[in-house]
Amino acid sequence: MSAEGAFLKACRGQAVPYTPVWFMRQAGRYLAEYRAIRAKASLLEICRRSDLAAEVTLQPVARLGVDAAILFADILLPFEPLGLGLSFAKGEGPVIARPVRSPTDVARLPEVDPSDGLGYVLDAVRTIRKALDGRVPLIGFAGAPFTLASYAIEGGGTRDFVTTKRFMYSEPDAWHTLLDRLATLVGRYLAAQAGAGAQALQLFDSWVGCLSPDDYREYVQPHSATALSLAAEGGVPVIHFGTGTSMLLEFMAQAGGDVIGVDWRISLDVAWSRLPGHGIQGNLDPAALLGPVPTLEAKVRDILRRAAGRSGHVFNLGHGVLQQTDPEHLRAVVDMVHEWSAAGV
Amino acid sequence: MSAEGAFLKACRGQAVPYTPVWFMRQAGRYLAEYRAIRAKASLLEICRRSDLAAEVTLQPVARLGVDAAILFADILLPFEPLGLGLSFAKGEGPVIARPVRSPTDVARLPEVDPSDGLGYVLDAVRTIRKALDGRVPLIGFAGAPFTLASYAIEGGGTRDFVTTKRFMYSEPDAWHTLLDRLATLVGRYLAAQAGAGAQALQLFDSWVGCLSPDDYREYVQPHSATALSLAAEGGVPVIHFGTGTSMLLEFMAQAGGDVIGVDWRISLDVAWSRLPGHGIQGNLDPAALLGPVPTLEAKVRDILRRAAGRSGHVFNLGHGVLQQTDPEHLRAVVDMVHEWSAAGV
Repeated sequence: MSAEGAFLKACRGQAVPYTPVWFMRQAGRYLAEYRAIRAKASLLEICRRSDLAAEVTLQPVARLGVDAAILFADILLPFEPLGLGLSFAKGEGPVIARPVRSPTDVARLPEVDPSDGLGYVLDAVRTIRKALDGRVPLIGFAGAPFTLASYAIEGGGTRDFVTTKRFMYSEPDAWHTLLDRLATLVGRYLAAQAGAGAQALQLFDSWVGCLSPDDYREYVQPHSATALSLAAEGGVPVIHFGTGTSMLLEFMAQAGGDVIGVDWRISLDVAWSRLPGHGIQGNLDPAALLGPVPTLEAKVRDILRRAAGRSGHVFNLGHGVLQQTDPEHLRAVVDMVHEWSAAGV
Repeated sequence: MSAEGAFLKACRGQAVPYTPVWFMRQAGRYLAEYRAIRAKASLLEICRRSDLAAEVTLQPVARLGVDAAILFADILLPFEPLGLGLSFAKGEGPVIARPVRSPTDVARLPEVDPSDGLGYVLDAVRTIRKALDGRVPLIGFAGAPFTLASYAIEGGGTRDFVTTKRFMYSEPDAWHTLLDRLATLVGRYLAAQAGAGAQALQLFDSWVGCLSPDDYREYVQPHSATALSLAAEGGVPVIHFGTGTSMLLEFMAQAGGDVIGVDWRISLDVAWSRLPGHGIQGNLDPAALLGPVPTLEAKVRDILRRAAGRSGHVFNLGHGVLQQTDPEHLRAVVDMVHEWSAAGV
């Protein structure tokens, strides 16, 4: 069976001869060949040039032997056609020049047709599919309404999401309008990526774990449902991911997605038992890659054991690859997952 | 019944006529009267001067009508007698001049007798008890071994705990030695605070929620148990608190504590059902204080409803008061909690 088969079959909950594996942020600074490209081009330039996007997307496929490639892009790219002004400070996170801080700011947001304002991403999808030549399937992705809103409102990254929550509680009408606009945009954007050739999609709600279960249901779930419903029109499997979501899993599954992505804060079997009818993706702590190999092996084996006997596990980290990671450790994880899952752990 | 009665009875799981309430970081920058003191003295100076520590400890008692005072101190004060070098950069978090990064650094840590190296905190406890004059009970506190270790290793605050985890995985012997040393120190420090007059104690494991359940059990739980067992020798109720701990609650309760503190990421009733024999503290999102009063009211009422019919609830936030908080909103929460809980919600 090709790697394409194993990953997509697992996403559909079908039996596979071995557990497929890929890594969030597998194209990134931990790879010398990625840093070489970044020495010549900024992150946004790589996203805009489909030849460079293809090159960095394929780097970890060759180097690590993962079972899927993920489109090189940034979840905040939609902020450019939305007129919010996006840049990346050197060594820092994203900077949003014109944050959304009032109902007026929300009302001012333009309607964005992803095939127009984000057409260069769809070009990259087409170029990458050709370059992959069927070796492994390509995953498209977008940020979820909540996570995008948090960057738009805070004006960048945040530790406590205070500005986001104050807006959410104080301006609930504008909040729901903002999230609905973002949901429609990212839902169509995901479907367009599938139309351009992405064979699976992931919705990143990376920061939604900062909310209480009740707030998730009231302020976020309906909009994630809109985004995921539009994404499902793409006709390919959808992974719905967040971190710190131990108490949100059922509600995230209700919102949509074929596979639910979990971080390491919950044991894989405990999470999966609460997600009937869904596949699961995860859930190694990225920091475990910085430890010695025997510790890493024990953790990988434990995750595979907790997933044993069920179909629909996609092995991954619980969040993105850390910059300090030795690529050889990731390569070793791929081999462990393939070998041990094929042998029945 | 005096406020002293309500808070301490709830900590012991006894019936109370109304739900007691206090707020983590209730003495802080959100209060103009605190900022007035801070204009004259640094954080560390206030901690060292028992008259000033008493003054800021009592400010929220007068202003908010809370049912308990909490000693004004910092969880990192033990780093001074440990020789790590502690300072607070202006507007930034703590800075540790000599972080613990190797087994040699761990071996070099001096033995600290809290009544010696932290005697000024015990003096503050005595002064505050006198100043309170029985109005409300005084809570003493300390940082938990994991949370202290994370600051000691990172050299300050962190978002991803990568350096901490790398040390934990790579140097497990030195890790366990470090945590055991910290556990013994904070356990004795807590018992000494009780000896000096603290009527309840809280162990802050604020950042332990960054760990997987298995890592918590392997790398942290035995040391928290040591600290809590020593603290229990103080003979007063102990609150064991952390954030992001939805999947760690049972293990934290096993480690010790009469009352388990939870943040807002889990519904209070769901958390409590997993903590038989324990009281519970929480669990309002501090950001809810920044929203409009009707939204705040709905959240307070919901928490009280989830706690109704059981003894042992101490109302609190899920983490510290945010700097942007209007004191009047906190005052309103105290009144709501008292009035609605007395009326049976």
